[in-house]
Amino acid sequence: MVAGFAAVDIIREKRDGQTLTEDEIRWIIDAYTRRQVGEEQMSALLMAIFFQGMNMQEISWWTDAMIRSGERLDFSKLSRPTVDKHSTGGVGDKITLPLAPLVASFGVAVPQLSGRGLGHTGGTLDKLEAIPGWRAALENDEMMAMLEDPGCVICAATGSLAPADKFLYALRDVTATVDSIPMISASIMSKKIAEGTSSLVLDVKFGSGAFMKTQELAHELAQTMVQLGRAAGVKMSALITDMNRPLGRKIGNALEVEESLEVLAGGGPRDVVELTVELAREMLTLAGQPDADVEAALKDGRAMDTWRQMIARQGGDVDAPLPRALHTEDVVATEDGYLSDLDALAFGVASWRLGAGRARKEDPVQAGAGIEIHVDAGSAVKRGDKLFTLHTDTPERFDLAKQTLADGYKVLAAAPLDANRSVVADRIK
Amino acid sequence: MVAGFAAVDIIREKRDGQTLTEDEIRWIIDAYTRRQVGEEQMSALLMAIFFQGMNMQEISWWTDAMIRSGERLDFSKLSRPTVDKHSTGGVGDKITLPLAPLVASFGVAVPQLSGRGLGHTGGTLDKLEAIPGWRAALENDEMMAMLEDPGCVICAATGSLAPADKFLYALRDVTATVDSIPMISASIMSKKIAEGTSSLVLDVKFGSGAFMKTQELAHELAQTMVQLGRAAGVKMSALITDMNRPLGRKIGNALEVEESLEVLAGGGPRDVVELTVELAREMLTLAGQPDADVEAALKDGRAMDTWRQMIARQGGDVDAPLPRALHTEDVVATEDGYLSDLDALAFGVASWRLGAGRARKEDPVQAGAGIEIHVDAGSAVKRGDKLFTLHTDTPERFDLAKQTLADGYKVLAAAPLDANRSVVADRIK
Repeated sequence: MVAGFAAVDIIREKRDGQTLTEDEIRWIIDAYTRRQVGEEQMSALLMAIFFQGMNMQEISWWTDAMIRSGERLDFSKLSRPTVDKHSTGGVGDKITLPLAPLVASFGVAVPQLSGRGLGHTGGTLDKLEAIPGWRAALENDEMMAMLEDPGCVICAATGSLAPADKFLYALRDVTATVDSIPMISASIMSKKIAEGTSSLVLDVKFGSGAFMKTQELAHELAQTMVQLGRAAGVKMSALITDMNRPLGRKIGNALEVEESLEVLAGGGPRDVVELTVELAREMLTLAGQPDADVEAALKDGRAMDTWRQMIARQGGDVDAPLPRALHTEDVVATEDGYLSDLDALAFGVASWRLGAGRARKEDPVQAGAGIEIHVDAGSAVKRGDKLFTLHTDTPERFDLAKQTLADGYKVLAAAPLDANRSVVADRIK
Repeated sequence: MVAGFAAVDIIREKRDGQTLTEDEIRWIIDAYTRRQVGEEQMSALLMAIFFQGMNMQEISWWTDAMIRSGERLDFSKLSRPTVDKHSTGGVGDKITLPLAPLVASFGVAVPQLSGRGLGHTGGTLDKLEAIPGWRAALENDEMMAMLEDPGCVICAATGSLAPADKFLYALRDVTATVDSIPMISASIMSKKIAEGTSSLVLDVKFGSGAFMKTQELAHELAQTMVQLGRAAGVKMSALITDMNRPLGRKIGNALEVEESLEVLAGGGPRDVVELTVELAREMLTLAGQPDADVEAALKDGRAMDTWRQMIARQGGDVDAPLPRALHTEDVVATEDGYLSDLDALAFGVASWRLGAGRARKEDPVQAGAGIEIHVDAGSAVKRGDKLFTLHTDTPERFDLAKQTLADGYKVLAAAPLDANRSVVADRIK
């Protein structure tokens, strides 16, 4: 281990806008992971990085130091090439569910080490746990076996990958240093590189329901992560996608599984299908199959077959009915017009308040809670038409959710011009 | 107590450049002092303040919240008016020693609650502890009695004044957030206001041996503190003084007591006398005696009498010889010329390395260690003339100290033009 640094000097250098050295970064991440540099020093450094930034070389060293803080997985012994996908998260973003089996049905291995939701964005594991019997925790050998057959796995990330990130994330969360592009990039990419995947496609979202509020920031984050991955020998590409309005027509845990099944059955909402297909094409291109007929695998049931195998292997009852919330309430149009300005953040927060998400890590989530959208953005509605159905087990939450939703859409006299805009706004090849 | 805030929101607001409210500031200082807001959150906030600053109103609330974290002293029952002095510290700055008895000899009460040195600046208590028998710790009633007669006291600050500052200072020290003008101002002024003095003169230093490297920064710091004091009802003025070269001819603990006795005996180096007299005039002006004949009290022994009473009351043997270091070494001129460019920082660090200062709070200091300067800046010297004498009990330190000093002066062919410049560069009335 590199020795001979004082944390306070490293903080001061970054505070004063200097570039940290490789040895300094390795030393402080290692000392912090071993709890020899205190939380108070690391939080001061994180805030200094928030203001002064890090250049690509510093971020790359930081990422590598986080990877070295833990174990690495090794997918190189698999008979299939691995392709991973990471989304920065949004409202109604269930894409992992249809995407992993879809891509795996082309003979590619798709590892999706996922997390739980916090705040207004849902967690992939929370969604799948709505399926009776399904379990998120797998041993490494179970995971490896699933990557051979059926070729995909969605499971909990092990704490032994980049443990420094776990400590750092908890610290960033309480010190208002989460939204720093160097830190976000290092956090995501340290785990992805430690997973040992050979290719990775990013879905970096922007807009009201996303972490990055503007397309420019999302592009900067994507560009940073692509460079980090490539520097570590990972084949990379990225889509920059619009998260100003919710993705699909269903938000919540069981509700999003339901919509994923629609997509796997060859149907589903236009935007969810578009993003699933675009991401699948990117992933298969990196895996050497640029001409794979992705839509066909959705239409002919190959993706659904892979899904059923994947869920069953983790104890999920693929034929059991999905849980429904105990109570529902409808929101109807109060005037004639066109449904417009659906705001992802409002739908995310309302769904969270209905019980689909959690405020604290230890909170439970309701499997059935969430929101169904009955009308596509831009469509004509008449007064009294049912626009949305709210689902919850705790009906005392309806009022607060409805208040939240009230500012989250409009019924306008003229049809919005951009109702059919593409979800994919930009891409980094 | 004000409730209902989350520290992370306060950090985020300051991070994003917002102005904190009075309730937010009171809440976070109180919660931090009660250890209910963690060090990691406070350090993130301190770093955010480092970058975003605080306006006068915020600094004033912050200062007041720190004062409320502890006790206040009350000098209002004294028969004499109180006038306090605070110096931001420098190399060879022994001014408190002659100044307190000088001003007290005019019937004014001068409380000097002081600290110990850390790094290259010496501590007033360390200096006085060179006097055999002298003790720094006093009970409140002993301190009050001394302020009645002889009218001055130099003693250790009690930990019950602004305890939040003690926690905050320790945290700033390890997180590179010490040098923030809002934080420095609040730290100094919270203690001074809590002491309950009615008037305060500041000596804010700039230059290589000072905390503030430029006159502009020193002026900004002084202005901030003057405004804070006036807002709290304290009569204020400030001198902005030059600390690019050491003050006086002696640096070290016993050595600085020795030089103080020269001043109290009516002699002493020009710059030490100038600053002592200027500060005494400011203090006496605030105490209602603008025309006091300060020089006379030095010449006729009144100040020396008060000094002897003050020292004796704290157990000091005023007639005992001062301790001397076990070893000395001279530095001589290696060419003919004029002694120039004495650098306060180099002399401070060399003296510290000889044993006069400490690297860690718990280190002891050597009473006799330090540096004597035999030639005034600007004077002609001949090759072989004795320039400085280094004193230490640990002669293995001579080499390192000499190396440090080697870059701390020059012997030039032409006399420097500014050798007789005034120490006082500016003042805030």
